[in-house]
Amino acid sequence: MELAEIGLVGLGTMGAALALNIAEKGHRIAVWNRTGTVTDAFVAEAGELAARVVPTHSLQALVDAIAPPRAIILMVPAGDAVDQQIAALRPLLGKDDLIIDAGNANFHDTERRSAEAEVQGVSFIGMGVSGGEEGARHGPSIMGGGPRAAWDRVAPILTSIAARHGEVPCATWMGPGGAGHFVKTVHNGIEYADMQMITEVYGLMRDGLGMAAPAIADVFDGWNAGALRSYLVEISGAVARAVDPETGAAMLDVILDAAGQKGTGRWTAIEAQHLAAPVPVIEAAVMARNVSSRLAERQAGQAAFGAGPQPVSLTVEDLEGALMAGKILCYAQGFTMLDAASKTFGWGVPLPECAKVWRAGCIIRSDMLDHMAQALTEDPGRNLILAPTFAALLKQHHGALRKVVAAAALNGHGLPALSAGLAWFDLMRTARGTANMIQGQRDFFGAHGFDRLDGKPVHHGPWGGHA
Amino acid sequence: MELAEIGLVGLGTMGAALALNIAEKGHRIAVWNRTGTVTDAFVAEAGELAARVVPTHSLQALVDAIAPPRAIILMVPAGDAVDQQIAALRPLLGKDDLIIDAGNANFHDTERRSAEAEVQGVSFIGMGVSGGEEGARHGPSIMGGGPRAAWDRVAPILTSIAARHGEVPCATWMGPGGAGHFVKTVHNGIEYADMQMITEVYGLMRDGLGMAAPAIADVFDGWNAGALRSYLVEISGAVARAVDPETGAAMLDVILDAAGQKGTGRWTAIEAQHLAAPVPVIEAAVMARNVSSRLAERQAGQAAFGAGPQPVSLTVEDLEGALMAGKILCYAQGFTMLDAASKTFGWGVPLPECAKVWRAGCIIRSDMLDHMAQALTEDPGRNLILAPTFAALLKQHHGALRKVVAAAALNGHGLPALSAGLAWFDLMRTARGTANMIQGQRDFFGAHGFDRLDGKPVHHGPWGGHA
Repeated sequence: MELAEIGLVGLGTMGAALALNIAEKGHRIAVWNRTGTVTDAFVAEAGELAARVVPTHSLQALVDAIAPPRAIILMVPAGDAVDQQIAALRPLLGKDDLIIDAGNANFHDTERRSAEAEVQGVSFIGMGVSGGEEGARHGPSIMGGGPRAAWDRVAPILTSIAARHGEVPCATWMGPGGAGHFVKTVHNGIEYADMQMITEVYGLMRDGLGMAAPAIADVFDGWNAGALRSYLVEISGAVARAVDPETGAAMLDVILDAAGQKGTGRWTAIEAQHLAAPVPVIEAAVMARNVSSRLAERQAGQAAFGAGPQPVSLTVEDLEGALMAGKILCYAQGFTMLDAASKTFGWGVPLPECAKVWRAGCIIRSDMLDHMAQALTEDPGRNLILAPTFAALLKQHHGALRKVVAAAALNGHGLPALSAGLAWFDLMRTARGTANMIQGQRDFFGAHGFDRLDGKPVHHGPWGGHA
Repeated sequence: MELAEIGLVGLGTMGAALALNIAEKGHRIAVWNRTGTVTDAFVAEAGELAARVVPTHSLQALVDAIAPPRAIILMVPAGDAVDQQIAALRPLLGKDDLIIDAGNANFHDTERRSAEAEVQGVSFIGMGVSGGEEGARHGPSIMGGGPRAAWDRVAPILTSIAARHGEVPCATWMGPGGAGHFVKTVHNGIEYADMQMITEVYGLMRDGLGMAAPAIADVFDGWNAGALRSYLVEISGAVARAVDPETGAAMLDVILDAAGQKGTGRWTAIEAQHLAAPVPVIEAAVMARNVSSRLAERQAGQAAFGAGPQPVSLTVEDLEGALMAGKILCYAQGFTMLDAASKTFGWGVPLPECAKVWRAGCIIRSDMLDHMAQALTEDPGRNLILAPTFAALLKQHHGALRKVVAAAALNGHGLPALSAGLAWFDLMRTARGTANMIQGQRDFFGAHGFDRLDGKPVHHGPWGGHA
């Protein structure tokens, strides 16, 4: 029997889609699932692709079915299941073999597993895969991390299954250890932020401009034909357009306003704090989801403080400009965070490649990312808001963002993400800030000292007996 | 020789102040410092209090100098030094002896040390001490965590040295394990937020109203005579009033606008994320400090985007109202976070006691905390914004907060904390929010499902082939 080029463990939704994608691109793949009947059903439903799928019913059989040096993709739930699967596989593998964790791992786990793998003489890659089931099946965005040589060995298969932006496959090695999963985490944080900003302008259309869902869908569709063209704006239009088969009402007006989450937005916020790399728009997006789930408290809040959001005097063009500006500010924060992580962990993450790998296949894909890749290629160390293309866009649109944030503040619309973006922008464009007051306070109560504008070597204030 | 009631390790600024405070309150205290000459100098400078201080020059001598069952306070730098000191002490101690870590520990370390101490048969208390050197010397706010029986044994000493609010000592047992250090962490997060909000209104006075430092000092002094009466408003007035002896300029105008931090604000933000308990005002305060230190980038930002903050049409009364509202919102978030931690870790933290213990001795002490203690006593499970006293204050002042945030947004003043507070408030008072859009998007691209307003058991939208 012909040996497979690669193996895959875990035939859940994502694993099955990825396996079919690999087979479809001409690669022979051996698969194994903890429950054997799932494996059988998978092959039965694989159609003509089944010819390149080797079903196996034990880990040993899986390993035996793959040509050495072996590469095995794990697509099992993030967490303990990954460690258990690695522990079960490792005794069966030789030192040139490679395990690829394609799940949504926390990069700290990936760093640990990489270190453990090195000790135990197996190669390990942590690989972020974005794009959901459809991406996995037809072309995801792939962010790899681990030993470069191991990546290079499997890169032909991974690039063949990845999404393409033009001719460029969206599968890139981001650096050693947990770099790939870290980039995926930041991707997900940005995804939270993008979704929240869209949601905020949706709220302004619904509650501030009194627009019904189909009219809102028209607006999103229009934006998707312009500079905001992106997957998330596109599907927001589709979501706003959809009609509930049960009631005939707009789908949006039927869905409960309590957002779920799987935690990667939170991871982004936490790692940003560790890195002292501000991502306030992402933090605001995570906050908004958390607050959304506090339904009873929000109802009590409305009862206590009266009518909710009021009409606003804004145009749809104002909202478009605000969303443009907010998006640029959010991505600038995200790339700054990636840069900080790359330097802190010594990864050497290629920032322009991050922007490129997100241009297709993943949830945050957008036209704007192409321009960001360009700007980061010109100068990866420059804050994106200072790149000429984006500085020009911000100059064009920050007025709209100001108008929208102000109108929302005056009329009771909560815009945590857009207002956090604006506040960050205004801090970042103020040469003489206000933290001198904080330094004065800190020196007053804690003798923490301060530097001076004139550079004189006097680091405490004349606070009398206090400092 | 008469044995001491208690021992103390570490005669740095805080340790020395605490030891003198203990001696002054009539307790005999044995002290030890790694460098013996520091111990000798401490005793030499202790004046008449030296009569109750027992200097020792080895850990064994320290232990021998204390009456069993012994209690020894550690005041050494947080981190490894604490573990090393515990390791050095433990072999010398018996099972009824008690180690008290009074440093600024991360509560995770305290939880670990508590568990280790239990195994090794020594009692361990993690104790937050707030108020800086002056507090330690004359009356700090003390937040204890660990075995209740151990706390009760040392409570007479600790309450005798603590700050007093009227007759009530600010020294309270917050729960087992890391509860005390956790409460201290949240205290520090709130401290960051309070300082940042004051700084934001300072910026509006300076850059928006064109006021000089002495005039700003007058405003803070005036506020400190009203409902905003608090240590931080008081010292902000003093800081604004101070004149630089070097140049004769206002001290504030000489201090560099780059804020330092020691990390406890960051810890608060991180733990809040783990708990899914939003503290956006604290997050914004940490962000602002981080951005403040990026001086070169901010200068480049101003060069790219032109003139900084512009004049605003606001009154000092608007600013006072905004600060009132922002402060209430921030504390509501902080107490909600404490409540979430207490439930998650099973600590049973007495929320009204947190408010009470912060009323004196610590940096965030304020009149408002007395009303908060009252409101939390009435109903510790109710969000503070819904307590009648604070709901009334918010109704009175949220208009000013809106006006201030809007004016800042339109005129280029970055108000991350105040605007984050307002956005959170508006989410919390909107019964029908906008997260239905997020749920629609998530179901569209990831088949994550949603709940419905009408409760029908249909959890996916009609997205065609997508979900």
